[in-house]
Amino acid sequence: MKVGIVGLGLMGGSMGLALKALGQIQSRHISRILGYDNNPIHAQQALNLGLVDECVELDEIWQCDVIFLSTPLESIVALITSLTPDMIGQKTTIIDVGGAKVEILLHIPSWLRHNFVGAHPMCGTEFFGPKAAFGELYKNGIVILADVEQSGAYQVEIAKDIFIGIGMKILKMSAKEHDKHIALISHMPHIMSYALANATLSQEDPQTILALVGGGFRSMSRLSKSSPLMWKDVFKQNKANVLKAMAHFQEAFDVAREMLENEDWKGLECFMARANTLQKFM
Amino acid sequence: MKVGIVGLGLMGGSMGLALKALGQIQSRHISRILGYDNNPIHAQQALNLGLVDECVELDEIWQCDVIFLSTPLESIVALITSLTPDMIGQKTTIIDVGGAKVEILLHIPSWLRHNFVGAHPMCGTEFFGPKAAFGELYKNGIVILADVEQSGAYQVEIAKDIFIGIGMKILKMSAKEHDKHIALISHMPHIMSYALANATLSQEDPQTILALVGGGFRSMSRLSKSSPLMWKDVFKQNKANVLKAMAHFQEAFDVAREMLENEDWKGLECFMARANTLQKFM
Repeated sequence: MKVGIVGLGLMGGSMGLALKALGQIQSRHISRILGYDNNPIHAQQALNLGLVDECVELDEIWQCDVIFLSTPLESIVALITSLTPDMIGQKTTIIDVGGAKVEILLHIPSWLRHNFVGAHPMCGTEFFGPKAAFGELYKNGIVILADVEQSGAYQVEIAKDIFIGIGMKILKMSAKEHDKHIALISHMPHIMSYALANATLSQEDPQTILALVGGGFRSMSRLSKSSPLMWKDVFKQNKANVLKAMAHFQEAFDVAREMLENEDWKGLECFMARANTLQKFM
Repeated sequence: MKVGIVGLGLMGGSMGLALKALGQIQSRHISRILGYDNNPIHAQQALNLGLVDECVELDEIWQCDVIFLSTPLESIVALITSLTPDMIGQKTTIIDVGGAKVEILLHIPSWLRHNFVGAHPMCGTEFFGPKAAFGELYKNGIVILADVEQSGAYQVEIAKDIFIGIGMKILKMSAKEHDKHIALISHMPHIMSYALANATLSQEDPQTILALVGGGFRSMSRLSKSSPLMWKDVFKQNKANVLKAMAHFQEAFDVAREMLENEDWKGLECFMARANTLQKFM
């Protein structure tokens, strides 16, 4: 069984490493892991780091039994729409690991739909590129399979076997629901973190201020290290939900500000005590 | 040399453990570490956990050579203003570890000013109470000494010796500057985190959403676990600076929202790329 991975960054590269460790899919030995990255430096790095066995051209990727698409979202759409029926076998499984699902699934031509499994592994770090990849990235994480009833049963089984094999728990969800929830718990918090970083950088002397930072600021600004290229596509494809999530956050932030302005200390304490209860769900 | 600690939570309890490990201050053996907490359960826990050698009444604390005030800010003010000159020796060193400095230092009576060193160790976790204490909390952190030129030279030396002894780097700063900077990099991000938690809890089905969270949300919501009692005092004492910091964040957040609304993807990418540069300062 041959596996192809398009996009050899954090997600794709880590998948290569995890699949090497897994060794087989449904009792079939993974004979080879082929990679493609449109950035030749990344392709070379991925090879040097042993993330894949070989870097090849895209046509060779499409001949693999299982193909992962792990590029930024807009490139996933471009890849999908570049395919023609003669390029993909009936039993091929194509899995994308993009962080927003509606737009991607909308662009799959109907002849390809059964080949395709839309997945979102809820794991990652703020680092990106082949050097950020590590074999344990997926372990113990949750992967969301979106609109999976539209995928072929065989392809879904393949995808499940892989994700379970590399240590993930599977959750099925509609793409629409996925994009709404993830906007609030992932996409929007990235904007918060980017905005905090920029608010700090806009101060008169950021260097002096940043010499003081402790663990709190490090937590809150961590996501601001994330890839602009990747996240631009996420915000583009999930714009409406992200704007709604921003409005939800804004509402809570305004409540806090008003209590502060009005010196409603009891109210502010209740606001914080309520936030404390989040932990019992996590 | 006797050390007294008022408030046996994360900061005070960890100080007890760190001082035990240190063993001496300026070549003088620490003979005893006394503790006081107005919550008898916390006092008992602190004893059981070995954070202090003994729990005593406040009068006995005031007779110690070095006294740490590590209660919420308003209680620090109440403690300071309860003191009379007959209660405190000329050479006594009182160090507060509160997270805002202007209000506390304003409330120190002039006869006590030379005894007093206003400090803010820039470390902490989201956990609180005696059980949150651990001996390595202060190690490798930065401690800000505020308006230290108003403290007695002897007392400043004692404070420096202790903080350096337990592994901290010392930074001097005016209380005013401290409160302004810390509002942006610590106090305000706590409000962001509390607001994110509440925005999530306000959703129709937070349980379903929170089942999906990954590392990003965990980072951004971590501070929302923090103590409402402690933070209410911080926001009360540093209100004006926190409101200004909220306005700075709001400005950056609004810029991002407008670019999203206007589909200015190039602009949004630049916004994120700028945020990325924060890391070179940290």
